[in-house]
Amino acid sequence: MCGIVGIVAKTHVNQVIYDALTVLQHRGQDAAGIVTSYGGKFYLRKDNGLASDVFRTRHMQRLIGSMGIGHVRYPTAGSSSSAEAQPFYVNSPYGITLAHNGNLTNSEQLAEDIYRADLRHVNTTSDSEVLLNVFAHELQRENKNQLKPNPDMIFDAVKRVHNRVRGGYAVVSMICGYGIIAFRDPNGIRPAIYGSRETENGTEYMVASESVALDAAGFKIERDIAPGEAIIITEQGELFTRQCAANTQLAPCIFEHVYFARPDSIIDGMSVYKARLHMGKKLAEKIMRERPEHDIDVVIPIPDTSRSSALELANRLGVKFREGFMKNRYIGRTFIMPGQQQRKKSVKQKLNALELEFRGKNVLLVDDSIVRGTTCEQIIEMAREAGAAKVYFASAAPAVRYPNVYGIDMPAKEEFIAHDRSTEEIAAEIGADWLIYQELEDLVEACLEGSNTDAKQFDCSVFNGEYITGDIDEAYFARLQELRNDASKSKRNTVENVAIDLHNDSQS
Amino acid sequence: MCGIVGIVAKTHVNQVIYDALTVLQHRGQDAAGIVTSYGGKFYLRKDNGLASDVFRTRHMQRLIGSMGIGHVRYPTAGSSSSAEAQPFYVNSPYGITLAHNGNLTNSEQLAEDIYRADLRHVNTTSDSEVLLNVFAHELQRENKNQLKPNPDMIFDAVKRVHNRVRGGYAVVSMICGYGIIAFRDPNGIRPAIYGSRETENGTEYMVASESVALDAAGFKIERDIAPGEAIIITEQGELFTRQCAANTQLAPCIFEHVYFARPDSIIDGMSVYKARLHMGKKLAEKIMRERPEHDIDVVIPIPDTSRSSALELANRLGVKFREGFMKNRYIGRTFIMPGQQQRKKSVKQKLNALELEFRGKNVLLVDDSIVRGTTCEQIIEMAREAGAAKVYFASAAPAVRYPNVYGIDMPAKEEFIAHDRSTEEIAAEIGADWLIYQELEDLVEACLEGSNTDAKQFDCSVFNGEYITGDIDEAYFARLQELRNDASKSKRNTVENVAIDLHNDSQS
Amino acid sequence: MCGIVGIVAKTHVNQVIYDALTVLQHRGQDAAGIVTSYGGKFYLRKDNGLASDVFRTRHMQRLIGSMGIGHVRYPTAGSSSSAEAQPFYVNSPYGITLAHNGNLTNSEQLAEDIYRADLRHVNTTSDSEVLLNVFAHELQRENKNQLKPNPDMIFDAVKRVHNRVRGGYAVVSMICGYGIIAFRDPNGIRPAIYGSRETENGTEYMVASESVALDAAGFKIERDIAPGEAIIITEQGELFTRQCAANTQLAPCIFEHVYFARPDSIIDGMSVYKARLHMGKKLAEKIMRERPEHDIDVVIPIPDTSRSSALELANRLGVKFREGFMKNRYIGRTFIMPGQQQRKKSVKQKLNALELEFRGKNVLLVDDSIVRGTTCEQIIEMAREAGAAKVYFASAAPAVRYPNVYGIDMPAKEEFIAHDRSTEEIAAEIGADWLIYQELEDLVEACLEGSNTDAKQFDCSVFNGEYITGDIDEAYFARLQELRNDASKSKRNTVENVAIDLHNDSQS
Amino acid sequence: MCGIVGIVAKTHVNQVIYDALTVLQHRGQDAAGIVTSYGGKFYLRKDNGLASDVFRTRHMQRLIGSMGIGHVRYPTAGSSSSAEAQPFYVNSPYGITLAHNGNLTNSEQLAEDIYRADLRHVNTTSDSEVLLNVFAHELQRENKNQLKPNPDMIFDAVKRVHNRVRGGYAVVSMICGYGIIAFRDPNGIRPAIYGSRETENGTEYMVASESVALDAAGFKIERDIAPGEAIIITEQGELFTRQCAANTQLAPCIFEHVYFARPDSIIDGMSVYKARLHMGKKLAEKIMRERPEHDIDVVIPIPDTSRSSALELANRLGVKFREGFMKNRYIGRTFIMPGQQQRKKSVKQKLNALELEFRGKNVLLVDDSIVRGTTCEQIIEMAREAGAAKVYFASAAPAVRYPNVYGIDMPAKEEFIAHDRSTEEIAAEIGADWLIYQELEDLVEACLEGSNTDAKQFDCSVFNGEYITGDIDEAYFARLQELRNDASKSKRNTVENVAIDLHNDSQS
Repeated sequence: MCGIVGIVAKTHVNQVIYDALTVLQHRGQDAAGIVTSYGGKFYLRKDNGLASDVFRTRHMQRLIGSMGIGHVRYPTAGSSSSAEAQPFYVNSPYGITLAHNGNLTNSEQLAEDIYRADLRHVNTTSDSEVLLNVFAHELQRENKNQLKPNPDMIFDAVKRVHNRVRGGYAVVSMICGYGIIAFRDPNGIRPAIYGSRETENGTEYMVASESVALDAAGFKIERDIAPGEAIIITEQGELFTRQCAANTQLAPCIFEHVYFARPDSIIDGMSVYKARLHMGKKLAEKIMRERPEHDIDVVIPIPDTSRSSALELANRLGVKFREGFMKNRYIGRTFIMPGQQQRKKSVKQKLNALELEFRGKNVLLVDDSIVRGTTCEQIIEMAREAGAAKVYFASAAPAVRYPNVYGIDMPAKEEFIAHDRSTEEIAAEIGADWLIYQELEDLVEACLEGSNTDAKQFDCSVFNGEYITGDIDEAYFARLQELRNDASKSKRNTVENVAIDLHNDSQS
Repeated sequence: MCGIVGIVAKTHVNQVIYDALTVLQHRGQDAAGIVTSYGGKFYLRKDNGLASDVFRTRHMQRLIGSMGIGHVRYPTAGSSSSAEAQPFYVNSPYGITLAHNGNLTNSEQLAEDIYRADLRHVNTTSDSEVLLNVFAHELQRENKNQLKPNPDMIFDAVKRVHNRVRGGYAVVSMICGYGIIAFRDPNGIRPAIYGSRETENGTEYMVASESVALDAAGFKIERDIAPGEAIIITEQGELFTRQCAANTQLAPCIFEHVYFARPDSIIDGMSVYKARLHMGKKLAEKIMRERPEHDIDVVIPIPDTSRSSALELANRLGVKFREGFMKNRYIGRTFIMPGQQQRKKSVKQKLNALELEFRGKNVLLVDDSIVRGTTCEQIIEMAREAGAAKVYFASAAPAVRYPNVYGIDMPAKEEFIAHDRSTEEIAAEIGADWLIYQELEDLVEACLEGSNTDAKQFDCSVFNGEYITGDIDEAYFARLQELRNDASKSKRNTVENVAIDLHNDSQS
Repeated sequence: MCGIVGIVAKTHVNQVIYDALTVLQHRGQDAAGIVTSYGGKFYLRKDNGLASDVFRTRHMQRLIGSMGIGHVRYPTAGSSSSAEAQPFYVNSPYGITLAHNGNLTNSEQLAEDIYRADLRHVNTTSDSEVLLNVFAHELQRENKNQLKPNPDMIFDAVKRVHNRVRGGYAVVSMICGYGIIAFRDPNGIRPAIYGSRETENGTEYMVASESVALDAAGFKIERDIAPGEAIIITEQGELFTRQCAANTQLAPCIFEHVYFARPDSIIDGMSVYKARLHMGKKLAEKIMRERPEHDIDVVIPIPDTSRSSALELANRLGVKFREGFMKNRYIGRTFIMPGQQQRKKSVKQKLNALELEFRGKNVLLVDDSIVRGTTCEQIIEMAREAGAAKVYFASAAPAVRYPNVYGIDMPAKEEFIAHDRSTEEIAAEIGADWLIYQELEDLVEACLEGSNTDAKQFDCSVFNGEYITGDIDEAYFARLQELRNDASKSKRNTVENVAIDLHNDSQS
Repeated sequence: MCGIVGIVAKTHVNQVIYDALTVLQHRGQDAAGIVTSYGGKFYLRKDNGLASDVFRTRHMQRLIGSMGIGHVRYPTAGSSSSAEAQPFYVNSPYGITLAHNGNLTNSEQLAEDIYRADLRHVNTTSDSEVLLNVFAHELQRENKNQLKPNPDMIFDAVKRVHNRVRGGYAVVSMICGYGIIAFRDPNGIRPAIYGSRETENGTEYMVASESVALDAAGFKIERDIAPGEAIIITEQGELFTRQCAANTQLAPCIFEHVYFARPDSIIDGMSVYKARLHMGKKLAEKIMRERPEHDIDVVIPIPDTSRSSALELANRLGVKFREGFMKNRYIGRTFIMPGQQQRKKSVKQKLNALELEFRGKNVLLVDDSIVRGTTCEQIIEMAREAGAAKVYFASAAPAVRYPNVYGIDMPAKEEFIAHDRSTEEIAAEIGADWLIYQELEDLVEACLEGSNTDAKQFDCSVFNGEYITGDIDEAYFARLQELRNDASKSKRNTVENVAIDLHNDSQS
């Protein structure tokens, strides 16, 4: 997962974009980048690390200009390199930079196509560089001897991009000396929202992955970008919007609500926080249905994501809610000393159990979801060591059984604990005395209930294997697995961390 | 405030000390340091920054040896320099390093005395360097042509230190090639606890500011160090303890429970977490007493410290508990660009209000305490902007009216919002519709209730102005003010950040 | 001035290119860069600084592949930015990187043309980025649906480049997955030479600015690249060469021999060292002609360039040669402290006079050339302070009166000490008792004498104002001056050092 | 070898000391350090690297005060650590810092003694830390309840230091808030000179290893410090000098003239430059004696040190002098890539032969001295490859056969090429057709001839094994060898580069 932001303002935007990236940092802590435009030139800084590490005063001083885009990146195992920070840049046509959140499922084929059609070389394994080149190529095709792009040309180019590109994506792009473009895939899988702020010099616009970024910067939310829609904000502050896809539907990724987004964000009209409260309510109802005579003494969340669901779950059950686990906010590294072996990473470095809340009690632990299950297992063990009589475990989401192909990095499906296991088997595996999963329809209802959204459905593929784009098959996963194998093989054959792209020569 | 740790183990201690510093990092994010001892030499690394910034692989590789001490530092306005990281070192006698948590109230006089008595030069304004030299001086006086110290000599030296030194302090010190010494002031103001861990090569010992550090490292708690007591752990793993002060009492700093310590720590037999739950209970009782007919719709904590008290307060009131403020975990900087002015730091960068929980409701906000009141004011404003009908405010601690002189950095008392103001006046100042302070006796009871402690009293000086050491008068504060003025003046006269000490030449 | 290198080898080339850059470092100490190609990707590292500062182990590990190009850059006042390191990159067609030594005199117009023709955006003020885009554009035009370039296409593209581009240039370029191309302007102003090395895996090729780079790496010199010629070395090791310009002549820059090149280089068949010896001989002859009764006691070179000429000059005069000035090899910075003013840079920091060789003597100081004259003046003063009776001054080159437009950075002509001054006036200005300039025809003869070169003439424009390309007029200089003014103005208006290009985001 | 400097000025001294260190940098490129004193505090910065790398603006800004001392360090194999930068510091008495050039031959014993006498712990293997502690101890003993030192006390302390310490040493020390002390061993082995500069605020003083540092800073030379003498310059600018040793003689290290010092320095009244000219003259006389019919065509120096001797040698022989080797001024590193082996360091990276001066000629190569002989061998091979008919080799110094114990780092004597070999055998070993060594008496005469010095003799121990201090025996070398073995053993046993001292925690 990643976070994106784009701003056209009336003064320098470097600080506002930087602030927005810190607000969106939960969407990706792996790398950060900002590019601004001033006087017909781009100014770029990107590198691995948190925004607070990547941007120093000397970098900020160079990031001049009143429009710019920014990106924070989530580490993805699938792409072989840990060093492909965004935004990316191509110099033709016009000079374009681009950053995106999501994943293209036909990236490989697209790279081949644009090479064949246009001899455009892609120097990394990042699908963002591919997407940028497809967009650039389509924009160039549109051009009829115009030295400047215009909204029609751009919207037409985005239309062609939608036709060629598969997957989920929310994109911000900047054309040198012209303006910012943002668009969202025809299924609206990945979120994108925009807003405005009045200043004495005129209206400023901001696009971002989540509404919190707008809130924090004092921008008023206009609305979510619609599936397939594109918006243009010119350097002068004109706004253009157009639907650029033929068949669209709003089917956002439900995992944003389960885990990814900040609770104080509102995505496609749905409050993430409220959705999480409802997940707790739905879970409580299921528990009451299944075990009306349950002996739960206390409900304890695994911090931080599940706190809202757990609180409402406890309320509905009429059981005490307690923060029985304390989170260590400062995490250090494990150094490998000469002659020593790598220590196993332990949940103990991150969490500490408060014996007072466990000793002799039947506890219900609540987490947002269960993926590999290894953390669950350690936490349940901690609960027992702290003296819990019985340890029950509730997942606010259903069992994760299928990979995500729209930008959320997940292990191969064989690594899911729910793979080929029944709920009872999973409970046994993680050591829980009882395991309760949310029902998928309850999860969907939790998100929709009481919200003011156009969404009628979600992409729930990680739970039910139904990929909303309808084009994901076994062949796709087979090819994916092959690529992963190749990547790890080529890593072994060459030196480590080599797949550094040309634009990211900044890790000094 | 600061955090200290000392370990004598059977293998290299660098990683364990580092891990402990990350667990204690909440006690100070300003600087970090570790010194180890190996083969008759010390190995030191210290610098400004978080532990995760200060220690890189190249530093850890040099921190060899099976015993060592570590420190994390809180930024203090009083000491003029931001660059005096601990531990400190003197080479005579034996080679000694030392780090401490606390504050000496006669530091200035002591520095003069040891210069006069022993020509010992103190190169910084840190009271730790003074304390180290006093200890070194006393140890040297004890020496009767012995090439190695022994427990008697050391305990006698600590005794003399107690006689000369005023204030609150918890100390770890290491004598080269000999062992680690830890001691605590005669009033037990600052916390210190020790524990042990069995290994196949023998028993390992650990001393730390808080029990969580022991928990995380898998050390079993032995007990708190008693007020005035010293403990010695030799490099070989022998443990010696002795009471080294004549008149002692256990009067720990109550602010540890209010705000400073981690909730999962147990200090002097008192669970911080339980104390905070009790604070909520006591607050609820006060509210029920004062306004049995209150119209509170929801209780909302100011994250993170007040969450436990707020939860219990809500439970007792029978009112909903909601996390209405979301905390931004990633905080960035404000860069000063050429020609721009410094922006005012805003609470908005740290907190975001969830409108859903405020709109049309009478909310009771709960914080651990109120010092300057500026943050309160902004938060109450945020609550109103989010649509709150009425905004009530509860402080889990009484009004802060007096400076702390035992190591918690606080502004001059004129800057306290409670200075010369009644509760009603404060409420008006911060914009609250109603303000409730905890009663001091309730706070004390909250800490003692149901706990297994020897403590009969606390240092509550910030609330009642009664300084447990009995030697703090107006003259002291006057001199303090003078020093601050001088410090800020000399800063203006010379270059910035100059008061770098000799041992801390590492900010490259 | 700059230095270039390109290598196609049978194993990784990173170390060999790095070594070559250190050997060519005298041609530019301002910035350094290397790009390699491996598995269809480019790997790039470039930054400001010496090669030894720019490349660390972590960078070298990423620079994988058996072909690559490198660059060292001379600081140029004309281009407004100090941060435009080479090589540059464009991704279409094929993926191309390029570095060059020289200067294009129609760079501005070319940038406009390629934008108009191809919408290619140039993001810096570097003429190298322009040259790369012109080359890329011409290569794309040549393409007839070929997914790989071939020699014919490339040679035709170079031909078109020659037709469009004005100035002096020696270029190395690399096409991703294909090979290295090198070419030289039709007048052969800037040097380029290539050689080969036999290994058990086949022949390796190297192109470089000077022959010393080949010597140091153990490559056998094949020959200089001819004016207008291009050579291609494919990744597989095939060599292709072709004359790509219609009207060519060999008119190399004579300043390479005077000052720029290393003495142990052989450029276009002429030994730089021998040329400098001959300059000394010619100077001696002029002195004997003009003052057969001269009273020179000792000949003293200004280190390091003039040592060879001065030695031969002394030999011919039959006068003692002495190294009366010692050069400080370690140069530090002048720090600006708060409240202090920038000190004037003094020759004293670089040179020290040995009194023994000056006291009471008539000394003839010898330098390679005189540009601004400020250093001369200080050195003559040093000689007098060291006790010299009379101070004579000889310049191994004629008076510098005209700007260089082919890549040697020089001040505006008003800043030359010889501007509008007679030799006598210059002598008075610098404080010399007698000033002898080399005659231009002597300088030319010195270079040609006894050498095995095809050169019949040189570009001597800095001495005689005759620009070999025949297209430099007053309008050109007027525009240049304007650009400089704009550049310095925009610097004042925006923040400093802003013109950082997109590819050079690496100054962290 | 090392370089030292100390300055008491009327304004901040940071820049002047920094400049002096760059002038003295030839004496040590391994580490650099400066400590200043201001307002009763020391400000220190030291680290490994050249002065230009160690000191950045942020460090210089903290180095405030009008007096300070500085040091550049030569890497020494004998001391096990590469990280013991100077100056060192002790806080008792008064606060003292110290740096020195030289070597103590009883350092180990002294460390034991001061521990026994005073429990002073020495945390590194540096003899400078030992020397500082001896001085501090003696100063403390002198103290009679005085809060400030006075000249008598200090001179008496230096006297005792001379009595206890063995070896060669030139020392600068600074007492906090008092002044600077400099002294030199009773045999005057290591150089030290002082001078003064008049300013409108009074006289400023400077002490340094070599006179060039004074020249460059505009200080007038007063005189060399006499053997055994100490000088004091108080912060107020008072100068005190006193002879502090009983039996003194001036027997400076002759290797300063052969190789170490800058030619433009004057040491103990002897011009290094003139001495080197005379070495050339003496060599010429020996050649004429031994082979009046020699067939030498050209004399070629090995740059840079031997250039002066070679020039005069050529003059006297009446043979051409030519700079046949070009030195590469920019030296890079050899990176070790995964799977590659370390390449042998080659002289080819440093030197390039100009074929023109070798082809078909009988060349006489001249170097200052021959130690291991490996470089000689490679250079002779280069000469032959460049076409030399015969290669003769002259050493401006006699054969090096004995280790230096006074601060010049040299290999064990078994590694000297002259060890157990006759001149003919050495010639054969290095591949020279003829080898000429300077006679020792000629070398001594070369230094003394025509100079205005009190020196009657030199320490020539590396040539004749006669150690001027008279206390070096086989037992000493045996113990030294043992220490080296221990050091390399302990390096293998622990992690690399561990012996970092406490004051040098700055390698971040």
